[in-house]
Amino acid sequence: MTTQRLQALAGCETAEMRRVAERESVTTAVLMNALAEGSVVIPANPRHKMLDAQGIGSALRTKVNANIGTSIGSPGIEYEMKKLSTALEAGADAVMDLSSSNTDDIIEMRRRVVALSPVPVGTVPVYEVAVQAREKQGRAIDFGIDDLFRAVQRQAEDGVDFITVHCGLTREAVERLKNQTRVAGIVSRGGALIAAWMCHNRKENPLYEYYDRLLEIAREYDVTLSLGDALRPGCTADATDRAQMQELIILGELVQRAWDKGVQVMVEGPGHVPLDQIETNVRIQKSVCRDAPFYVLGPLVTDIALGYDHITSAIGGALAAYYGADFLCYVTPSEHLGLPTPRDVRQGVIASRIAAHAADVARRVGGACERDHALSEARRNLDWKTQVEMAIDPVRARQMRRARNPEYTDECSMCGEYCALRVFRQYVE
Amino acid sequence: MTTQRLQALAGCETAEMRRVAERESVTTAVLMNALAEGSVVIPANPRHKMLDAQGIGSALRTKVNANIGTSIGSPGIEYEMKKLSTALEAGADAVMDLSSSNTDDIIEMRRRVVALSPVPVGTVPVYEVAVQAREKQGRAIDFGIDDLFRAVQRQAEDGVDFITVHCGLTREAVERLKNQTRVAGIVSRGGALIAAWMCHNRKENPLYEYYDRLLEIAREYDVTLSLGDALRPGCTADATDRAQMQELIILGELVQRAWDKGVQVMVEGPGHVPLDQIETNVRIQKSVCRDAPFYVLGPLVTDIALGYDHITSAIGGALAAYYGADFLCYVTPSEHLGLPTPRDVRQGVIASRIAAHAADVARRVGGACERDHALSEARRNLDWKTQVEMAIDPVRARQMRRARNPEYTDECSMCGEYCALRVFRQYVE
Repeated sequence: MTTQRLQALAGCETAEMRRVAERESVTTAVLMNALAEGSVVIPANPRHKMLDAQGIGSALRTKVNANIGTSIGSPGIEYEMKKLSTALEAGADAVMDLSSSNTDDIIEMRRRVVALSPVPVGTVPVYEVAVQAREKQGRAIDFGIDDLFRAVQRQAEDGVDFITVHCGLTREAVERLKNQTRVAGIVSRGGALIAAWMCHNRKENPLYEYYDRLLEIAREYDVTLSLGDALRPGCTADATDRAQMQELIILGELVQRAWDKGVQVMVEGPGHVPLDQIETNVRIQKSVCRDAPFYVLGPLVTDIALGYDHITSAIGGALAAYYGADFLCYVTPSEHLGLPTPRDVRQGVIASRIAAHAADVARRVGGACERDHALSEARRNLDWKTQVEMAIDPVRARQMRRARNPEYTDECSMCGEYCALRVFRQYVE
Repeated sequence: MTTQRLQALAGCETAEMRRVAERESVTTAVLMNALAEGSVVIPANPRHKMLDAQGIGSALRTKVNANIGTSIGSPGIEYEMKKLSTALEAGADAVMDLSSSNTDDIIEMRRRVVALSPVPVGTVPVYEVAVQAREKQGRAIDFGIDDLFRAVQRQAEDGVDFITVHCGLTREAVERLKNQTRVAGIVSRGGALIAAWMCHNRKENPLYEYYDRLLEIAREYDVTLSLGDALRPGCTADATDRAQMQELIILGELVQRAWDKGVQVMVEGPGHVPLDQIETNVRIQKSVCRDAPFYVLGPLVTDIALGYDHITSAIGGALAAYYGADFLCYVTPSEHLGLPTPRDVRQGVIASRIAAHAADVARRVGGACERDHALSEARRNLDWKTQVEMAIDPVRARQMRRARNPEYTDECSMCGEYCALRVFRQYVE
């Protein structure tokens, strides 16, 4: 088997490259160059049959991921599959199945998501490993090294397009963490499991020690590695600290090793980051990881907005994407409080899409400005039909327009006859 | 009568200065200096008897304003008064009564808002003038110059703390506007009315021509002038253009003239502004207007998010406040679609408060970091009671925590037993 990266390096145009080039209005030559440089990935496992290929990286439209998946005590697979449809309808560019209820459900859910999803599908294999260990041995960290790689292999065979692997969490990075103070410690679920395994077994992180084994599987199935940031800050006070930077340096090395083996790779980033540190976080990742795509989880610009973290992450995500982050992981209003509802999923996707689009407007990519312009022309002309059609969420726009304007005048019910646009056109223009 | 500015210049400490200093944990000396410099205002009309004074400006916590007010076809005064309670409960630092239904309601609403509001109250006097003109003469622009100043006087007598006056919209600025292209023309309601009056009467803007008359009233009642940006961009394509800059230059002159007369003054700003132009917009205002407080309407970082403009303005507002904007006018989900509901008001206030707080965290002012820190300590300790109490909206946080965790475990229903914080403490720490 081969990968999109190897094909690009060989100068072979793939169907996926053509599809992405078409979607993004760039030439395949530009795209192929970016794939070869590593600044763009096309997560496309050939076993994911119904995938409509999507590119992630520099000079492309900013993409949005939605997390779904079963949890212990959650309503189960059907409920999570409903979230898949909701996320797709709301315009998610990718989904991650983070199921962690029980092994059977994890496998079934993953297969159903891959079978039904036209967007790239990601997973975090260590969740399945931990759940299985708990089922068999009673504890989430009672797994062997082979268990870990077998899970990766199994998920690759199932057609998963990208996987989060916390390979940069080395013993040295854990040492750095212990040599400083942190308010929130480790808040990455997979990262905490790996760290616990390492501390308990007094061994190096197997995803780091046997990274080549991971690269072999990733290369065979063209699974894109999403190098997890186990030490991302979990509160604004912990942002951009030594532990986070230590892990990032290792991730930079691992990016290069993936590229050398022809494997596609992106890098995950924080987390909770105050506004004034977002630019720094993006620039250091881009520099240390040689322009590998940056996949950020937020960033959340404050810790206190329980119930509104789709908004805090839209603020941080817009800014991160403007400075160069390529892929935004959505955050729902339910973050820090519990498992999201389908309604939360919808709000999370739309909030992230707004952030991504706002960054694209500022970066002048992906036709974003043209869309703003066209909608504003319709707004000036009080052409509601076009405004609603071009809105980021036409369903919601239509519904609110109707609910707030039962009489359906040209103007809206805020200003009515004193509509500035109308007054301007009548007297000034 | 005197003003907070004149008192500060005379070195006299007022009760309002003491109250603001106490709220903001700054000394009265620092505050007095900022008032004398003009970088802080305390909108406090002595006739607003139940006001709990609030300061707006540099080195203070970023403030949030909520707009309410009747419209033609709206449900009326009681509905808008409900929005006043909603806005206050949600934590608005100021309210503007933008009523424009009919003269009787405008007067009654204003008096009731002033009577019940502990936060500073703002208005846009030209709305009352236009509504009265329409009632008496049939057209909103059929008012005389005296009508305008009499309305300002009346509103000052009613205890209004700050008024939006579009004094910078000169004939020259309108000329600049006509000498360029714009997608959305004028989108300021008051600005469009003034421009229409000027074009129809072929006269200079009376708020500019007789600015000294305005200053006399403002000084007599200590009404803070909020110099309106009639030419603010109404879509991202129109941002930071020549017309907008022309008006801003005039506003800078008018700030100085206000200061010279002892009048408190702030400056209003855009509007729709792409992310990459927000810093520029704030810096040019601060420079041209010599650090007068900047009151921004958004900024909205994209035009296409109908139904979600509280989010687009939270993105822009956070960034603007980080760069130095002092006062954020909320935008509700209903913006561009119709009159907001009380629920929209609540969402708008909270979204703006999140933006303001995120900026304050990044600027390290107003105890914002300390609050993030304290909540995150509670989060690490899985102490839900404290987390909820310290949240930006405890009511919503409590409700969501309950709804998503019917079983009330220590962890939340997202990760359950695989809670990263728990795993970290158990094995790593």
